Amino acid sequence: MTELKWIAVDWGTTHLRVWGMNASGIPLFHVRSDQRMGALEADAFEPTLMALIKAHVPDLDRKIDVIACGRVGALKGRADMPYCAVPCQPLAGGLTKLSSDQFNLNVISGLKQTQPFDLMQGEEVQIAGYLAGDKEFDGVVCLPGLHSKWVRVSAEEVVSFQTVMTGEMFDALSDHSVLQHSLAQTGLNEELFLETVSEGMAHPARLSSRLFSLHAESLLSGLSAEDVRTRLSGLLIGMELAATKPYWLGQKIVLIGDHDLSCLYAKALTEQGCMPIMVEAEDMIRNGLIAAYGAVVKIEGV
Amino acid sequence: MTELKWIAVDWGTTHLRVWGMNASGIPLFHVRSDQRMGALEADAFEPTLMALIKAHVPDLDRKIDVIACGRVGALKGRADMPYCAVPCQPLAGGLTKLSSDQFNLNVISGLKQTQPFDLMQGEEVQIAGYLAGDKEFDGVVCLPGLHSKWVRVSAEEVVSFQTVMTGEMFDALSDHSVLQHSLAQTGLNEELFLETVSEGMAHPARLSSRLFSLHAESLLSGLSAEDVRTRLSGLLIGMELAATKPYWLGQKIVLIGDHDLSCLYAKALTEQGCMPIMVEAEDMIRNGLIAAYGAVVKIEGV
Repeated sequence: MTELKWIAVDWGTTHLRVWGMNASGIPLFHVRSDQRMGALEADAFEPTLMALIKAHVPDLDRKIDVIACGRVGALKGRADMPYCAVPCQPLAGGLTKLSSDQFNLNVISGLKQTQPFDLMQGEEVQIAGYLAGDKEFDGVVCLPGLHSKWVRVSAEEVVSFQTVMTGEMFDALSDHSVLQHSLAQTGLNEELFLETVSEGMAHPARLSSRLFSLHAESLLSGLSAEDVRTRLSGLLIGMELAATKPYWLGQKIVLIGDHDLSCLYAKALTEQGCMPIMVEAEDMIRNGLIAAYGAVVKIEGV
Repeated sequence: MTELKWIAVDWGTTHLRVWGMNASGIPLFHVRSDQRMGALEADAFEPTLMALIKAHVPDLDRKIDVIACGRVGALKGRADMPYCAVPCQPLAGGLTKLSSDQFNLNVISGLKQTQPFDLMQGEEVQIAGYLAGDKEFDGVVCLPGLHSKWVRVSAEEVVSFQTVMTGEMFDALSDHSVLQHSLAQTGLNEELFLETVSEGMAHPARLSSRLFSLHAESLLSGLSAEDVRTRLSGLLIGMELAATKPYWLGQKIVLIGDHDLSCLYAKALTEQGCMPIMVEAEDMIRNGLIAAYGAVVKIEGV
């Protein structure tokens, strides 16, 4: 079972993860790159993927199956991928075969919602990965990140969801506002973070005024750069929790994300009386891609 | 009275305005540039100003008086300017003489506040300019912009103030978020704007969720780029009005700003039952710089 059967790809806005799989869905190799999708043209997909896997597959002599999810479906120049309307199972949108010289390239469709309008592309695979191990789950899945998703799940379906662009606001304000001069790139004061989350939840309208006040405090009173970063993070996550309260209040919550960010959300939610369960995003994506591949094989095997 | 006596300079974050004045404070010439302060080094101030005025003053043979306000006092490399603590008269911080080879350069001090922390640098001159024509004013001055200021004024003093970085958030989110692909650079739907201001005031916590929803709506349902711009503007200004309600509710309001932006704020405030008076920022700055120069002449004449 050391023969490479197919390749699993998660190509999000901020990273690219690739697994080489055998027929049983056991990874033979795993590579990860921080190559962003934003600037990538459609015809760069194949060479980029090939370059990444060639150290592991030096003599690929056939068109291998690739199952991909995430922003790869929305690559500039590629045909627009369809989205599947919720409520539906996370992988209900199925796969779309895209033209490719070197791969049998199948891309997983994202989900859409019209009331209110919303989109997800990639997170549906993580949810499918989680449900593969907990079919009976009835509650809310939170996927914190650049565009955090809050997802109501019941009876193996995504019922509704809400995106909050907390991570993107954090980046935009860190790098492109007056705060850029007073903000640390790393570090977080946990006690201050929790205090600021409460403030952000209680007074969300004051966000943009508080941010300028932090700038003034750093100039006038030497507020530390780590504390500025902590408060920006706390105010934005507090605002997110205020906006998503109808999602998480009184619900079972599963947090799927990178470890550090999930820990922050877990602490903030615990402070609100919730008991979130944390699982690693990478595990859920791999499991979700395996589930999607299983569906293809089943369909092809009919 | 055609002899150039002094030069008035307003050098803000986004622009540079210069007036050549005679002894009576009547402008002999006026030039304006959109040169931003952000990237300017301290030693570039004099050559930049000289280049701008030399068409009007080809044979300047003496060190002429310059009265400047705005971010020029915070130029990288220059000594930090002092700030005057409120409550105080707008020009109570006085002038600081900065070293200069070609000018007698005097920079007007800004104002500071410690509860909550806040700063202004330049707007105090506009307030002084307004008070020069309406000493009895008792109410709130709003100066919309990159960093909007809301200022309580009474008995010729600035009592307290609050900065809201609405313009900077608009720019950061327009240029550095997922909205960048769906947002028009100009244009505004007035009716939709007022509707969205109300929404932003009522549900400020939803800002970052609503913004992603606009992105989704533009992809799924063809929401126009002008409507996305209108809604971003409306949500942010609505959030600002919610945060500053203790300032404007039931108060006399004077709006000092560029015409188009002031009109937007006037419409939003009128919808809330206010009757704001609009005055042009440029007139107020010039009058404020004249008031500051008058104070110097008086002091020097003692």
